[in-house]
Amino acid sequence: MKHFEYSRRVGFCDTDAMAVVHHANYLRFYEEARVAWMRARELQETHFPIADAALAVIESKVLHLRPAGFDDKLIIRLQVRREGLKIVFRYDMHIEGKPELISTCETSHVMVNKSMKAVRIAKKFLTALEREPWTETWPLSL
Amino acid sequence: MKHFEYSRRVGFCDTDAMAVVHHANYLRFYEEARVAWMRARELQETHFPIADAALAVIESKVLHLRPAGFDDKLIIRLQVRREGLKIVFRYDMHIEGKPELISTCETSHVMVNKSMKAVRIAKKFLTALEREPWTETWPLSL
Amino acid sequence: MKHFEYSRRVGFCDTDAMAVVHHANYLRFYEEARVAWMRARELQETHFPIADAALAVIESKVLHLRPAGFDDKLIIRLQVRREGLKIVFRYDMHIEGKPELISTCETSHVMVNKSMKAVRIAKKFLTALEREPWTETWPLSL
Amino acid sequence: MKHFEYSRRVGFCDTDAMAVVHHANYLRFYEEARVAWMRARELQETHFPIADAALAVIESKVLHLRPAGFDDKLIIRLQVRREGLKIVFRYDMHIEGKPELISTCETSHVMVNKSMKAVRIAKKFLTALEREPWTETWPLSL
Repeated sequence: MKHFEYSRRVGFCDTDAMAVVHHANYLRFYEEARVAWMRARELQETHFPIADAALAVIESKVLHLRPAGFDDKLIIRLQVRREGLKIVFRYDMHIEGKPELISTCETSHVMVNKSMKAVRIAKKFLTALEREPWTETWPLSL
Repeated sequence: MKHFEYSRRVGFCDTDAMAVVHHANYLRFYEEARVAWMRARELQETHFPIADAALAVIESKVLHLRPAGFDDKLIIRLQVRREGLKIVFRYDMHIEGKPELISTCETSHVMVNKSMKAVRIAKKFLTALEREPWTETWPLSL
Repeated sequence: MKHFEYSRRVGFCDTDAMAVVHHANYLRFYEEARVAWMRARELQETHFPIADAALAVIESKVLHLRPAGFDDKLIIRLQVRREGLKIVFRYDMHIEGKPELISTCETSHVMVNKSMKAVRIAKKFLTALEREPWTETWPLSL
Repeated sequence: MKHFEYSRRVGFCDTDAMAVVHHANYLRFYEEARVAWMRARELQETHFPIADAALAVIESKVLHLRPAGFDDKLIIRLQVRREGLKIVFRYDMHIEGKPELISTCETSHVMVNKSMKAVRIAKKFLTALEREPWTETWPLSL
């Protein structure tokens, strides 16, 4: 099965004094992949700033298996599904041309408005979620 | 029991378009607390840049219970212990003057050198770890 | 003359692969000093989130004279004055215990509301500005 | 004349509580454009991590003319030339589909090694610099 894929280069500002990507930046990269998925599914109209709704993170779990360095091209794959009131994304990350995973991640979200109150998920968003494939055993390292 | 405590204000740059602290910044704040603990235990000589050893993050898990906003004074408490080759920190976070937790976190680490290879934990660091109290049930929400 | 002073440690996440503070982070540190100055002058009620007004940056200039590294204690001094519709801050930065400047900075601001429209500066803020000393030749390297 | 061009989306983490890109992030975006230029000119072998040389920032000046928001597609154009021992980049930035500039920037650099000492600029890098066009009056707002 083919997962949604997003890619970006590691910037110099993303590295730390160990000359590898600082761990907090992984959450930024996974967020970029999430937003790219929303754009690919044409869900912008259901989200801030067009709608008063944003995917607030209520939990995140990141595993770090191998380091990444300046200018490495990162490939992030993801899957997403609804779990009751939550929306759950799972991701893995590798460097272009190298098959080994360098990180995996799971983030859980609720849709909230500007007052940070939970709101109903837009119908278009729900429909998109229902169409997404999900593999319970993917990624394996999580 | 009294946990080690670290405090810092939320900067404007730490907020996002929802006017709350962006979730990736929590890992930066928890790292600051970890470093403050190392300084309080006088472990600087066992860590980069004095020693060729740094606490690499191999796993992190963050829960977000309530938002924090610009200029809020965050209080982070932590405990730490050794688990085999790993060093595990647990944290909670609240806003000064408000008892409710806004976030909890667990990070797991290995000590690595500049080549990102695992290295022995310095004796002084181990001794410090052995003196730290640990409450298995703290913080409750994890 | 004594300038307003703010101090903070360099975090691990603030460093880059050259093992020094990444240049973009200086603007974050200078912002923290600016906010600390506002707090010291009790101007919170004139600024976001209490008032619909924020000090938007319209221009910044930063000089880098020497590097700073992980856990260095940075001391930032600043002065501020009104120049017509603009509010101008000047800063210098050194490491505790070392007299040499490592950076100087000038930032220019206008007060804007949530719609990013220029708004009148609150009277209390103006009064505070009028009381601040200003040395045209400080800091010298700018 | 056609300047080198780099484009990227604004991430959610790049915004602040005013719902616009935080000013410190512009330096990160301009750095990305600089790195993309180096890659386009095939200069990677002259720079960290392949060579012990990196373009340290010694001065930056950023003007902010209009705000940018979440998911805006930013277009950065740049020119670069040698000025004695310094390498100077000038940039402008606009949002795709909107001709108005939102920011301009100038950064000055010296090539340094891991000990932060100035080093000779590699011949290949110099040759690339000599081929770059330069318009003294561009961008106008600087």
